[in-house]
Amino acid sequence: MNGLDRLTALFSKLPGIGKKTAGRLTYHILEGDPSYAELLAEQLLGLHEAIKRCSICGSFTETDPCPICADPGRDSSLLCVVERAQDVRVIEEAKEFQGRFHVLGGLIAPLEGVNPRDLTIGPLLNRVSQNKVQEVILALNPTVEGDTTVLYLQNLLRDFNVEVTRLASGLPVGGDLEYADRLTLARSFRGRVKVTP
Amino acid sequence: MNGLDRLTALFSKLPGIGKKTAGRLTYHILEGDPSYAELLAEQLLGLHEAIKRCSICGSFTETDPCPICADPGRDSSLLCVVERAQDVRVIEEAKEFQGRFHVLGGLIAPLEGVNPRDLTIGPLLNRVSQNKVQEVILALNPTVEGDTTVLYLQNLLRDFNVEVTRLASGLPVGGDLEYADRLTLARSFRGRVKVTP
Repeated sequence: MNGLDRLTALFSKLPGIGKKTAGRLTYHILEGDPSYAELLAEQLLGLHEAIKRCSICGSFTETDPCPICADPGRDSSLLCVVERAQDVRVIEEAKEFQGRFHVLGGLIAPLEGVNPRDLTIGPLLNRVSQNKVQEVILALNPTVEGDTTVLYLQNLLRDFNVEVTRLASGLPVGGDLEYADRLTLARSFRGRVKVTP
Repeated sequence: MNGLDRLTALFSKLPGIGKKTAGRLTYHILEGDPSYAELLAEQLLGLHEAIKRCSICGSFTETDPCPICADPGRDSSLLCVVERAQDVRVIEEAKEFQGRFHVLGGLIAPLEGVNPRDLTIGPLLNRVSQNKVQEVILALNPTVEGDTTVLYLQNLLRDFNVEVTRLASGLPVGGDLEYADRLTLARSFRGRVKVTP
């Protein structure tokens, strides 16, 4: 195995990168300026050292607590629970939510060996009980695992004086009824909203 | 811009990697074992030093000449001309061709500023004239640029005592007539072969 094959093998371990794509990436880098390879290597080496998890919300950050947890302007009464750290960025980019975050670290999936104790549910309940949280928004994917986790958290949060909500499920904006699957369509009917004039 | 953003920006410069995919790769590496990032960085740093171009055929190799050019068992009367170094690997994997290779380094594309003098055409003619090459197989893509390059090389090679061929164009194995485009179908008719009983 030479350097080409080793780099290709490493690239093909990344999600969504097959053997062919990995080869294309390797050749692209090889044919390009060595400075690109050096920059990429440098960033890779520094990544785990520079980026840590926020000790409050669990998202990735260079400072602890993260900028969102440290920001006094954010609404502490709203707590948005997400599966993974990268979901925080996706939601931040939508510029709709002004509260705080909590990263669960996964979804309950017993068949894949992910149980409630593997998630940051304890810290979540602590945060809910100690702070003036009024609403917990479960921003979890509308999948079997997401639904299971919503049910589980809903049961636990019943003991606290908080409202528990989840994100609306329905047709994507710009989408087409014709291409919507049966379950999405059913949910969009159940969650239909009044048209205000 | 933090380490996450910088790595994402670098990944998104790779071919076929958009901003979203680049982000997913970065988070995957961040959530994974730091040893993977270190291995990847190491291979990137060593790549350009370890892999050079073969001084005979122009393909990527750790030794010069490359294993194919150095192999006395390969048929020197067959010379396969390819566009890029990675094409050598693709053809080798098909285990059909036992001759030697020549990497052109591109295809003639005047609109993109690639002229014949940018390609290794001089060295190709040298190899053809100095060695006992009997057939030059032009294994170039069946595109406008490929066809242009075939025509150009065909004209030049007319002065030498060699047969010039190109790869058959037609329906892909396992493909479906219904999904073949008009030009491919036309070529597959022109290149139809006798069915031997």
